[in-house]
Amino acid sequence: MRFITAGESHGPVLTTIIEGLPAGMPLNINEINEALAKRQEGYGRGNRMKIETDKVEVTSGVRHGKTLGSPVTFSVVNKDYKNWQSVMSAEPIEEELSKKSRVVHRPRPGHADLVGGIKYHHKDLRNVLERSSARETTMRVAIGAVASQLLSALGVEVVAYVCELGGIKGQVDVSEMSLAEIRDRANQSPVKMVDAEKEQQVKDKIDETKKAGNTLGGVVEVIAEGLPIGLGSYTQWDKKIDARLAKAMVSINAFKGVEFGDGFEVGRRYGSEVMDEIAYNAELGFYRLSNHLGGIEGGMTNGMPVIVRGVKKPIPTLYRPLQSVDIYSKEEYQASIERSDTTAVPAASIIAQAVVATELTQAILEKFPNDSFDELQQAVANYREYSKNPDMWLEEE
Amino acid sequence: MRFITAGESHGPVLTTIIEGLPAGMPLNINEINEALAKRQEGYGRGNRMKIETDKVEVTSGVRHGKTLGSPVTFSVVNKDYKNWQSVMSAEPIEEELSKKSRVVHRPRPGHADLVGGIKYHHKDLRNVLERSSARETTMRVAIGAVASQLLSALGVEVVAYVCELGGIKGQVDVSEMSLAEIRDRANQSPVKMVDAEKEQQVKDKIDETKKAGNTLGGVVEVIAEGLPIGLGSYTQWDKKIDARLAKAMVSINAFKGVEFGDGFEVGRRYGSEVMDEIAYNAELGFYRLSNHLGGIEGGMTNGMPVIVRGVKKPIPTLYRPLQSVDIYSKEEYQASIERSDTTAVPAASIIAQAVVATELTQAILEKFPNDSFDELQQAVANYREYSKNPDMWLEEE
Amino acid sequence: MRFITAGESHGPVLTTIIEGLPAGMPLNINEINEALAKRQEGYGRGNRMKIETDKVEVTSGVRHGKTLGSPVTFSVVNKDYKNWQSVMSAEPIEEELSKKSRVVHRPRPGHADLVGGIKYHHKDLRNVLERSSARETTMRVAIGAVASQLLSALGVEVVAYVCELGGIKGQVDVSEMSLAEIRDRANQSPVKMVDAEKEQQVKDKIDETKKAGNTLGGVVEVIAEGLPIGLGSYTQWDKKIDARLAKAMVSINAFKGVEFGDGFEVGRRYGSEVMDEIAYNAELGFYRLSNHLGGIEGGMTNGMPVIVRGVKKPIPTLYRPLQSVDIYSKEEYQASIERSDTTAVPAASIIAQAVVATELTQAILEKFPNDSFDELQQAVANYREYSKNPDMWLEEE
Amino acid sequence: MRFITAGESHGPVLTTIIEGLPAGMPLNINEINEALAKRQEGYGRGNRMKIETDKVEVTSGVRHGKTLGSPVTFSVVNKDYKNWQSVMSAEPIEEELSKKSRVVHRPRPGHADLVGGIKYHHKDLRNVLERSSARETTMRVAIGAVASQLLSALGVEVVAYVCELGGIKGQVDVSEMSLAEIRDRANQSPVKMVDAEKEQQVKDKIDETKKAGNTLGGVVEVIAEGLPIGLGSYTQWDKKIDARLAKAMVSINAFKGVEFGDGFEVGRRYGSEVMDEIAYNAELGFYRLSNHLGGIEGGMTNGMPVIVRGVKKPIPTLYRPLQSVDIYSKEEYQASIERSDTTAVPAASIIAQAVVATELTQAILEKFPNDSFDELQQAVANYREYSKNPDMWLEEE
Repeated sequence: MRFITAGESHGPVLTTIIEGLPAGMPLNINEINEALAKRQEGYGRGNRMKIETDKVEVTSGVRHGKTLGSPVTFSVVNKDYKNWQSVMSAEPIEEELSKKSRVVHRPRPGHADLVGGIKYHHKDLRNVLERSSARETTMRVAIGAVASQLLSALGVEVVAYVCELGGIKGQVDVSEMSLAEIRDRANQSPVKMVDAEKEQQVKDKIDETKKAGNTLGGVVEVIAEGLPIGLGSYTQWDKKIDARLAKAMVSINAFKGVEFGDGFEVGRRYGSEVMDEIAYNAELGFYRLSNHLGGIEGGMTNGMPVIVRGVKKPIPTLYRPLQSVDIYSKEEYQASIERSDTTAVPAASIIAQAVVATELTQAILEKFPNDSFDELQQAVANYREYSKNPDMWLEEE
Repeated sequence: MRFITAGESHGPVLTTIIEGLPAGMPLNINEINEALAKRQEGYGRGNRMKIETDKVEVTSGVRHGKTLGSPVTFSVVNKDYKNWQSVMSAEPIEEELSKKSRVVHRPRPGHADLVGGIKYHHKDLRNVLERSSARETTMRVAIGAVASQLLSALGVEVVAYVCELGGIKGQVDVSEMSLAEIRDRANQSPVKMVDAEKEQQVKDKIDETKKAGNTLGGVVEVIAEGLPIGLGSYTQWDKKIDARLAKAMVSINAFKGVEFGDGFEVGRRYGSEVMDEIAYNAELGFYRLSNHLGGIEGGMTNGMPVIVRGVKKPIPTLYRPLQSVDIYSKEEYQASIERSDTTAVPAASIIAQAVVATELTQAILEKFPNDSFDELQQAVANYREYSKNPDMWLEEE
Repeated sequence: MRFITAGESHGPVLTTIIEGLPAGMPLNINEINEALAKRQEGYGRGNRMKIETDKVEVTSGVRHGKTLGSPVTFSVVNKDYKNWQSVMSAEPIEEELSKKSRVVHRPRPGHADLVGGIKYHHKDLRNVLERSSARETTMRVAIGAVASQLLSALGVEVVAYVCELGGIKGQVDVSEMSLAEIRDRANQSPVKMVDAEKEQQVKDKIDETKKAGNTLGGVVEVIAEGLPIGLGSYTQWDKKIDARLAKAMVSINAFKGVEFGDGFEVGRRYGSEVMDEIAYNAELGFYRLSNHLGGIEGGMTNGMPVIVRGVKKPIPTLYRPLQSVDIYSKEEYQASIERSDTTAVPAASIIAQAVVATELTQAILEKFPNDSFDELQQAVANYREYSKNPDMWLEEE
Repeated sequence: MRFITAGESHGPVLTTIIEGLPAGMPLNINEINEALAKRQEGYGRGNRMKIETDKVEVTSGVRHGKTLGSPVTFSVVNKDYKNWQSVMSAEPIEEELSKKSRVVHRPRPGHADLVGGIKYHHKDLRNVLERSSARETTMRVAIGAVASQLLSALGVEVVAYVCELGGIKGQVDVSEMSLAEIRDRANQSPVKMVDAEKEQQVKDKIDETKKAGNTLGGVVEVIAEGLPIGLGSYTQWDKKIDARLAKAMVSINAFKGVEFGDGFEVGRRYGSEVMDEIAYNAELGFYRLSNHLGGIEGGMTNGMPVIVRGVKKPIPTLYRPLQSVDIYSKEEYQASIERSDTTAVPAASIIAQAVVATELTQAILEKFPNDSFDELQQAVANYREYSKNPDMWLEEE
């Protein structure tokens, strides 16, 4: 499976093409739209999200509710575009108009503006910010929603929630909860946290921060259960499933770190404290007594839940301005506000879930035959049977 | 540039082929061997490293000290192979011998053994552990040493050190030090730390841990200075330089997390505390007043030092054994010892430096023309001039 | 540069996303539409092309007539879709409707129908033929039109014409003609031939063949002039420019062969007859006295015109039916007609030109720096100067 | 599966690493060496092949006669290297020696010399010719021999022979012969032709041509039988199996064209003459009444034998010299002889067989699960059963 996302933040349409999905897979478009709606939610969002109500249109690769095996195209119309038509027109516009109207020459710290302008020789920094905008993540959520449907039909569930926001950590031990429970709690929470007791505290912090013209970051966690054993591989560095998940997570706008299982804590503990001992019974086959390593050993899924966390920095656009320099005049100024979320960490949990689901789907499609979806389902089912039955594995030939 | 590494831990030879290096680049083989030697060092290593003295043989792609533009092949002989010839023979061996001799049927928790056996249908887990071994990192260090020479000739320096080992953090503020100073200190330290005052404490902890039959992990930091502005891109998720560095770091054996700049801390601070404000003067062009974001904005290098940290879990092979299950008998046992480093965190810093140098080199080769090395050097020099001179960027056409 | 094309023949929209174009490149949308119009022309076409008037809509990556460096999205509406809405709906449709309406169970020889059905477990062969249709080439022509504009701005011109149709060869020696002249003649010819004298003969053959319910194939030639020396490389098999062009040409629907320069004839001649001897003068630098090898030596462009020919089989859908078997009843029948061009060889010349332009553009973008278009132009200009001036090449360092 | 080949013609060693082979696949090293020996044979070869007796050493990825699933490394020692040690040394050599000894400044027409020198800024053209040499094909034959063993174990056979040499065509209709018979005849023939009656004529032509200081090219054909239906895909241009085979064939040194089935002839016939009609019986399932299209429809294998032909130009190095220009003095001269085969077309048939086997193996590994070889075998066997049994395909769910 490969995909490319396209589209400017205030352009007419966001588009993605996904190539290499199995044929005959049921695709529920409503569920994709529900995922998009979740990305737009979250306590602390600003006004743009009120303008848009993202819905995908499917223009290829799906017929009568099932994939065709051909490339799938999604597009999402930007409603706000109607206010930006001449600014964002693909066609040349009159000199007068192009020269002055909304040319951006004041790069915002923490954004791609300045570097992108230099790299691509853009003299209007709008040419950078339109694409570097997190609006792009709309399409990654749409792709992730397809991946989630595929995974779900194979018995794999992926959930995400906010485990920390503005320095306030949830205290609930999710390892004791079912994924369904985690998902329900996160869905009901305006800050996508599982720990309901911390919720009000977090909302208060968001309110205060907003008043102060500041912004907040946080940490999100994604958990995937029911994965086949042995996704990824140790045989070459670029095949390791954790390495690939790390890339996917850090590729999300504003993410500055990623960790698996006990994460950075494993560097502070003894070896005897962080290994997942092996046990066996006839029903489960081989299994683990703990999950310090987040479901991954040797760059492969080991049958325990995959646990990935990512940290998102606070949104760099502040009401309280940052120092910057006008690229033309070289005069210092206080950086302008392009948009105004106080925090987008709740949305980030939805995006993180999407990219993890996408990468796990990739790994499944690499391991199992998948021209058709029934072939894939059958192969995964057979392999599950095999992998928990050592006699099938170890029998003499 | 692309490369594949090959070789088993006790096989005859480790090999890598690197394809896509510029032609005419001076290549100092001694420097590669020095990097390999450093990987073998470090307080807390066990016996295997005393057997091997890794040295590359260059069998293609280099002539009279310069690259040819054709694929470069490195091989490193495993001296230990002479003790393993029949066990590791490529040729079929007699039934008698193959059946019993050193067949591994006891998977070690924290290693690829069990999952790899199931995934690849290996009935002798040696077939897994020989490749999943960290011995593979020898070749990644060799590749990184080539990358470092290329970078160095372009004015980019990369250093690494151990910032935390077994829970003991170095307290020195490296942001006040030159890279040369950091490198010197790390080189002189048996635990590759910059903070000399913590060194004895760390060594003592290693000694105690060794006595207790346990192991230690830690955190390493890599810093790269002098990078051109604009490596990587925001235009598509998989082009972001931080995403790619995250993949490279997490692909190192036993790494469980990665972070950039202030890392996970950015999730706990206000937006106003973690942005790198922009300033300008005629000599430097645009520059930053701080480096919270670790030299990366919008998935691109921004001219500040790139700062990446990775966490390595403790080596899972312990003298103090872990519970596991014999794959044939299904009986529980206490997992065996295959090797015996107490910690490999100092070596991990060398490997981390190598993979970061490699990935940054990739990004440079993608951005700049590089059929020949002088062409590359000229292009980078011109671009540096351009990128600190807004008049070249913004002039009217 | 990478791209994916998407869209079904009777679906609502064809789409492509092109990722990795330089920023700041002027893009003339009219010229793209002109190329699309040419693809729809040609003596011997059937009715579908009268329904459609292909025009691209640009929904990302272009602003005010210039590329942004972000992914470019093109969509082309299928006008015919309005007649196929329930048949081709992405949404599930009522059982009754889905069951019978236009289910295809009679595979056509020479098409993907039967194999595609088996491979993807499609029980309605429409699920195959909608994508395997040559309608897909619309998007490849659009991509090629972008590539042609890029090449043209760098001084590279690509033309194509029909050199043989239905067994009738043009006799004009195009090596004596300018590319402009070849292009003009082909454009004016309803069969896209350069040899005006053969034109009537070919048209008569098409008329007769149409009457007889049969179809015709032919051979097209693409010529590219002004290419930088050294696109492609001998250093690894998959970098050779001729290998890559061969892939691109054979990927066109119904193409069964490709050849370069004197092509298959070189296998029948002596070595002394097919080599392109080297000469030198101060103005041109090194040049060749002939072009038997079609502008490519050692998998690289050598400065002479690149000459590629491809053969297209006759369209397999005939009024005169072919034997096939109903997949459900297993009864033999005479294969049905889905569409009815007598020949599409003239259109094939336009497609061939597009894919060659696309692949040459790829090779240029790999060799030269291209974040911005002015950077690319400057680098190509400098390299041209260099490559015809041996003193710049051979000077002592 | 991916692989990189490395090594200079007179360097110490040729190497390849093959990554992504299934684990547990029996690998017969003797058979690889037999393929290498065949590449060195053929009436009309010169002296270099008498110096070398190519044999692979396997240094990774294989244990006790079976693949490990880890990367496989092959190396072949160049015996001739002992005569070239200082000329080809990787280490810097003394100025005196480097300056004059065997520096190549006279580019040979038809070789990569001149273009490679310009592209890579090589001032000694030996830096080009050492890698552009057809000696590289040694490794492609070794890789192909692995692929052939894999295919053979799956019931797929690939053979090749010379169908035309120096303008003399074999007249035997191979479509009436078994692959075993074709292979036997080609193996017994010093010119690898199937038509024994033409053999003497061809040998005489080679003798005459040699006397005249000239060289000969020719056409080779590769046939693959027993392939699963549906390798490759029509869903995206770069997945088409014929496009990929075209790339592989044209990537062979000196190949200037490729065609499938009836090849360029299909452009000269009526549609009714070149389609392969479909029939059905209970034993075979769906099958074809002819094979004009060379076993490929819609970019996929259709169950008929895959038939590919490639044309090789005559070797450009002639005793009868060609005009060229000294790159330093710019004086014309008559191009020198570096080696002296009269024809290498017989060897080319072996190489063509290898690259086709390699590409078909790639396509099989993409379609079927292959972590372990028994998994692959089982999946292919199941699919074969399925694909000839329409009831399995079309049954109601």
